[in-house]
Amino acid sequence: MRVVCSKENLLEGISIVQKAVSSKTTLPILEGILLEATDKFKLTGNDLEIGIECLVESDIQRTGSIVLNSRMFGDIVRRLPDSEVLIDVKENNLVIIECENSHFELKGINASGFPAIPEISKENTFKISQKLLKDMIKQTLFAVSMDENRPILTGSLIECKDNVLSFVSIDGYRMALRSAASNGENLDFNVVVPGKTLGEIGKILQPVEDELTIYNSQNQIMFDMGNCRVVSRLLEGEYLNYRNLIPKDYETKIIVNTKDLLSSVERASLITMDEKKYSVKFKIDDEKMIISLNTDIGAVREELNIEMTGESMSISFNPRYFIDALKVIEEDTIEMRFTSNIGPCIIAPVDSNAFSYMILPVRTRND
Amino acid sequence: MRVVCSKENLLEGISIVQKAVSSKTTLPILEGILLEATDKFKLTGNDLEIGIECLVESDIQRTGSIVLNSRMFGDIVRRLPDSEVLIDVKENNLVIIECENSHFELKGINASGFPAIPEISKENTFKISQKLLKDMIKQTLFAVSMDENRPILTGSLIECKDNVLSFVSIDGYRMALRSAASNGENLDFNVVVPGKTLGEIGKILQPVEDELTIYNSQNQIMFDMGNCRVVSRLLEGEYLNYRNLIPKDYETKIIVNTKDLLSSVERASLITMDEKKYSVKFKIDDEKMIISLNTDIGAVREELNIEMTGESMSISFNPRYFIDALKVIEEDTIEMRFTSNIGPCIIAPVDSNAFSYMILPVRTRND
Repeated sequence: MRVVCSKENLLEGISIVQKAVSSKTTLPILEGILLEATDKFKLTGNDLEIGIECLVESDIQRTGSIVLNSRMFGDIVRRLPDSEVLIDVKENNLVIIECENSHFELKGINASGFPAIPEISKENTFKISQKLLKDMIKQTLFAVSMDENRPILTGSLIECKDNVLSFVSIDGYRMALRSAASNGENLDFNVVVPGKTLGEIGKILQPVEDELTIYNSQNQIMFDMGNCRVVSRLLEGEYLNYRNLIPKDYETKIIVNTKDLLSSVERASLITMDEKKYSVKFKIDDEKMIISLNTDIGAVREELNIEMTGESMSISFNPRYFIDALKVIEEDTIEMRFTSNIGPCIIAPVDSNAFSYMILPVRTRND
Repeated sequence: MRVVCSKENLLEGISIVQKAVSSKTTLPILEGILLEATDKFKLTGNDLEIGIECLVESDIQRTGSIVLNSRMFGDIVRRLPDSEVLIDVKENNLVIIECENSHFELKGINASGFPAIPEISKENTFKISQKLLKDMIKQTLFAVSMDENRPILTGSLIECKDNVLSFVSIDGYRMALRSAASNGENLDFNVVVPGKTLGEIGKILQPVEDELTIYNSQNQIMFDMGNCRVVSRLLEGEYLNYRNLIPKDYETKIIVNTKDLLSSVERASLITMDEKKYSVKFKIDDEKMIISLNTDIGAVREELNIEMTGESMSISFNPRYFIDALKVIEEDTIEMRFTSNIGPCIIAPVDSNAFSYMILPVRTRND
């Protein structure tokens, strides 16, 4: 193999495929990046859960393939001058990397042992803009469960039904739901994608309108961005029927400024070292919301002006669960709907039905 | 105590005195910041090695004092709105912090147990610009020894002699020396300041021409920036006579571009996981320098154009020691003077005698 490419393009490709390279593995080849030159020059990382491949624009002077340690290869290319880079594989897997006056000789690994990325049958295909997918991931990924005892909840449901595409995450205490109109092909499917995969995809996606194509089969899903493709396994099992979880009506409804509420809850949570131990109390009465928290270190009280409909009430929540949701809402004002002080609360932007968040209250001694 | 001050000023003061607050201590009061309102409002942090006090512009409504946990107090103030902050100490050391619609009640600690910062007799006083002191610290601190077996070398020598002020650090393998004309008061003294103190001072100093005053006595040194004062203990013992260590002549002298040399040595050091194990080899011949390094992972060769005087030579160094020094040199070109391939090498900017660096070579099997 002998290729010449720009340092910039090579580094961009390496940075992307590195997201699928294992850092903890007993198989040295999985710590590597596969370099393949056929009619195109392709880099691949694969940790057996996620596989990412990326094409790098190159002048291919001789075809072939080799595996190079990912960290080392990345560190070297990052430090090269902004110029043309030659990668030349000699006998015995010796790899020459040359750029201006720098000359490296590295020991590569034979490519034959590198695990192939599975082929995906192209059954359910849909297109979505990079920006929209990035937003949908950001607004739901944080609510994915960390509890390996219920593996299905460690992923997000991606559902396409009645021309609406939805992302859903549930961790037992809260649910994040983001919907968007799908592109009208009337697909009907639902798959559960591991949270880790969505996290990596979220980092690769750019906030641009360029479309990518998603293919999914029984066990695998592929995100195809043209020059770069990510393949991941799907989680097996039935996801919760989330529609049944959403309460239909409410006892109290308030409208409040998103940033003010976020700042207040963040400040309140500062006087607790252990967020799970203390809950933040919302007292809603007379067009005001009093947010308070008492710990052995001290006490905090915050006052916010609100618009309210319905009954006065007091309700307590885990402050972390509130902060997570408020951080991903871009709209200036939100609506909060309370069923009762022991029932779920719904948070949603006032001027959009694309996002909604459901959170269960904490029962306190005074309830 | 009752004071009102701006969030911005308060936060600036907290951030500075926090550098002297202990994070690992068995005495809770040392994790605190002392707040004192007399005719001025003063914050103090003191970990018994370094003490920092800072005046904060305030409206003092009632004098008094209290100690608040540093991390908690800092986190709360950082998150307050950009507005006026009221700090009011009530009975039983209860501290009220109010800002717009936020109201905190924190448990403070009685100030009587807080260790006082020692008074300094003002024997040797000199003035220096913040920027110059910051530079002098940056260019010498990195060469301070980490070896607690020779405590005196864990600090930098500050010497004033013949109207020249010098900072010197030596760790047994290398020496960094930075000099500047002193302000003509013909002082004669030398003190050794702990590396940790200089590190914290370096962070507090701004790159501005404003002067600060340094006072030093037998055991203590004080850096007085007007609104903010740092007091530190000095290290006891005799420092090495560094002047005798510097070689007078050389066998080979080269001139090379600073950034090019830094990039080359940085790249060469990438193919070693353990920088102490492998040395980088410089081969100087025929107006060229070949930089090479061979490890069990691979080999690298870099070529640089140089101007040279004297004999051709080969010499090996610890790459980390080279990188450290090249990073703090701002000048475009440096001069390197070699005595022999087993003797010290001197690195200095071509157009300045303010900084010089001496490094000992590594003996390799091929020498």
